[in-house]
Amino acid sequence: MAPLRDSLNLDHPIIQAPMAGVSTPAMAAAACDMGALGSIAVGAMSVEAARSAIRETRELTKRPFNVNVFLHESPEKNVAAEQGWLKRLTPLFEEFDATPPAELNEIYKSFNDDTAMQAMFLEEKPAVVSFHFGVPHSHIVTDLKAYGAYLIGCATCVEEAIALEKAGMDAIVAQGMEAGGHRGIFKPDHDPMIGTMALVPQVVDATDLPIIAAGGITDGRGIAASLMLGAEAAQMGTAFVASAESAASAAYKTMFLSDRVQETEITCVISGRPARGIKNRFMSDVRSFANEAPAYPNAYDAGKAIAAAAGAKGNNEFAAMWAGQAAKLARKDNTANIIAALAEELEAVLKKNL
Amino acid sequence: MAPLRDSLNLDHPIIQAPMAGVSTPAMAAAACDMGALGSIAVGAMSVEAARSAIRETRELTKRPFNVNVFLHESPEKNVAAEQGWLKRLTPLFEEFDATPPAELNEIYKSFNDDTAMQAMFLEEKPAVVSFHFGVPHSHIVTDLKAYGAYLIGCATCVEEAIALEKAGMDAIVAQGMEAGGHRGIFKPDHDPMIGTMALVPQVVDATDLPIIAAGGITDGRGIAASLMLGAEAAQMGTAFVASAESAASAAYKTMFLSDRVQETEITCVISGRPARGIKNRFMSDVRSFANEAPAYPNAYDAGKAIAAAAGAKGNNEFAAMWAGQAAKLARKDNTANIIAALAEELEAVLKKNL
Repeated sequence: MAPLRDSLNLDHPIIQAPMAGVSTPAMAAAACDMGALGSIAVGAMSVEAARSAIRETRELTKRPFNVNVFLHESPEKNVAAEQGWLKRLTPLFEEFDATPPAELNEIYKSFNDDTAMQAMFLEEKPAVVSFHFGVPHSHIVTDLKAYGAYLIGCATCVEEAIALEKAGMDAIVAQGMEAGGHRGIFKPDHDPMIGTMALVPQVVDATDLPIIAAGGITDGRGIAASLMLGAEAAQMGTAFVASAESAASAAYKTMFLSDRVQETEITCVISGRPARGIKNRFMSDVRSFANEAPAYPNAYDAGKAIAAAAGAKGNNEFAAMWAGQAAKLARKDNTANIIAALAEELEAVLKKNL
Repeated sequence: MAPLRDSLNLDHPIIQAPMAGVSTPAMAAAACDMGALGSIAVGAMSVEAARSAIRETRELTKRPFNVNVFLHESPEKNVAAEQGWLKRLTPLFEEFDATPPAELNEIYKSFNDDTAMQAMFLEEKPAVVSFHFGVPHSHIVTDLKAYGAYLIGCATCVEEAIALEKAGMDAIVAQGMEAGGHRGIFKPDHDPMIGTMALVPQVVDATDLPIIAAGGITDGRGIAASLMLGAEAAQMGTAFVASAESAASAAYKTMFLSDRVQETEITCVISGRPARGIKNRFMSDVRSFANEAPAYPNAYDAGKAIAAAAGAKGNNEFAAMWAGQAAKLARKDNTANIIAALAEELEAVLKKNL
């Protein structure tokens, strides 16, 4: 019995994770066409860009795909904190002959507060909608379910999983602290930092929903391990960052395939929320005053500006290069071949341990 | 092909972890007699106490068992740091009508520097010797192997695993950051904090030795997952803390079986080296000056004193109650029954998924 795989008509227990700025309609469609669940991430997009991404994906595949949005608490404007942060970062901007932005903006809204985005979803009706950073408002759950959407939440601890089940999710991603990119924690200042191995069985026990393991899973061994822990599928992002369909920059892909990918760190200085990426100068230079970072996503407005300023001078040490702790196992290939290799490895691992 | 299980004649891919102050000859013997590998930890014992523990275990089981020692770098004496630390802790001692010790001592030696302990091992010839915190000196490896000992190192990252393989280990524990008790990191101030799910396959790929998964594994699901990741066995400590044979205090066992076991934290304030335990007042009260803790094991001299002072007044908030992140899954039973249940679960999980 595999309710999630039945519901989503998956040939493989594999979900290509949504990754804002990295996953693409082509990646998601390729994953879907291989019998996995492909995902696009529209949380950092405008309504019209998000609509275009959904339509583009739909043109590329006939299978259901997942559209991911963010549910962070919208930040309270704190001009003093933001100006203090910009002052802190000014020497870095100056190093690259740039000036910091005059102010920081809320560069994208929480789906919970974005009625225009919600309305677009009700028009476009993506088959699967997944959420990061929290619980969707009940009217959103009602509206999305009314057209038949399959809803996936993300939990980093048992309490979050229980809250998501109560809110009406159909499945839950149990995200271990190994995962690349943003931690799904509901409250950015309370992180239990639970590893995938410990988290998945406890979430499986605590809810009646299908559980999707995430965090540190990059090959068939990790998928097989996820199944043993009681998950129905594994969600993998890092495995696809270096794929042909990835929107990661050339510098990001080059770094990703170097030994430096083995050194990752969770930082809040880039975006204002904890996220795991390849260690870089941004993280180390700003570590001593990291606790002064303004709220997400306003801090990201500064982070993107300094990355752009440094990048214009050929310095990639300030760009967000999200990566999980098993990124060393990632492949440089196209998405279809990566899915095929993962499925083959999974079968081989299961057969070997029979 | 399972070299480790063949070498050690194991019926089950299960190692009961050595836990100083918690594992006992009775626990180790019960684990061995059930076809797992039992372990005692003698790193914090005198030579004569260690000899007695080895002999006692040998009287209780005919099967090979594991004897664990510590390989921390012996601390340089730093009177100023130690006195500063004692001054910091004085208000806590006073709360329990006690006075802090006048000075801190190196309460036990590193096996690398303890020639009397080494000589005792060569006399008692334990079949399996495992190491924590580093690499044994080459003459120790030579001497132990000369009588036929099977040697197990502990790695928290790929680099440590490679160093252990070069040093002549027969197998390596890959310890994820979920694990309870002391992190096996060689250098206490550089912790990559890699989770078990990400660590195990990378260590499997990096060495030719049998790998033992550890960290966040408390039931048959975790053991099955470990096998899928390429490990030959799982080492589990947390699973046995509440067992009948455990030397854990009544307060520790009670806490362990309460909901508080779900909240663990890695701290260095108790012993001077990072270790994961149930969150308590010691960790929170001392957090703001945790970086002033003197070196291991000298800090532990203070930690044990404050735990004793508080304990004498019925307060258990200062005792080290080590626990991994999946401690919620631990059972209160005798060691033989726990091993039997783990083996049964493992078989059921494999059967369900294969």
